Amino acid sequence: MHAIAQDYKTGEVLMRAHMNKEALRLTLQTGKAHYWSRSRRKIWRKGETSGNEQIVKDILIDCDGDAILLKVEQKGGACHTGYRSCFYRRLNGEIVSEKVFDPAEKYGKQRKEGVK
Amino acid sequence: MHAIAQDYKTGEVLMRAHMNKEALRLTLQTGKAHYWSRSRRKIWRKGETSGNEQIVKDILIDCDGDAILLKVEQKGGACHTGYRSCFYRRLNGEIVSEKVFDPAEKYGKQRKEGVK
Repeated sequence: MHAIAQDYKTGEVLMRAHMNKEALRLTLQTGKAHYWSRSRRKIWRKGETSGNEQIVKDILIDCDGDAILLKVEQKGGACHTGYRSCFYRRLNGEIVSEKVFDPAEKYGKQRKEGVK
Repeated sequence: MHAIAQDYKTGEVLMRAHMNKEALRLTLQTGKAHYWSRSRRKIWRKGETSGNEQIVKDILIDCDGDAILLKVEQKGGACHTGYRSCFYRRLNGEIVSEKVFDPAEKYGKQRKEGVK
């Protein structure tokens, strides 16, 4: 199932990913966004490495039931590049989002400490 | 490539679909949203049947380059059910969007007239 995360206050679209039933169940159970990684074939919790969790405020489903829209409170940035949104640029490369953390520092430091 | 359409003024997420290179090229060329139907294996222009076109105001691409965010002016409703957004309900069925047209009337009438 497709999943889209949107800032519940500003309406900014933050990222897209996939969910399966278990990811949705964990999201509902914990109030924190969980996704399904198709490449790694495992559930992941947004922020499990970066700390940039998504606190779920509302969940909508689309007309044909194959997409979920999560309205979230995004801690830190949603994007692993350090931008607030994964949709941080135009097709010509022009940047339209804000850099909110340094990914090298955040992921590098946590990787050394073995934090997931 | 994944595609998400968002109202350029209100930030409301309207629908998700797919695009291929040709759909993106036609979208850029005409300023109107075109998508790729994976089930029908053909390009479609949003509104070609309903008249509910999407005038594209901005296009963003995500970090890994596999998703496009279209900021659009949505004519009429985005959803074939008559709602403004395809994300018109919660998981429990509660309606959160506005019904803006009668699909039976719109599609029925146009089908009879042979309008695509």
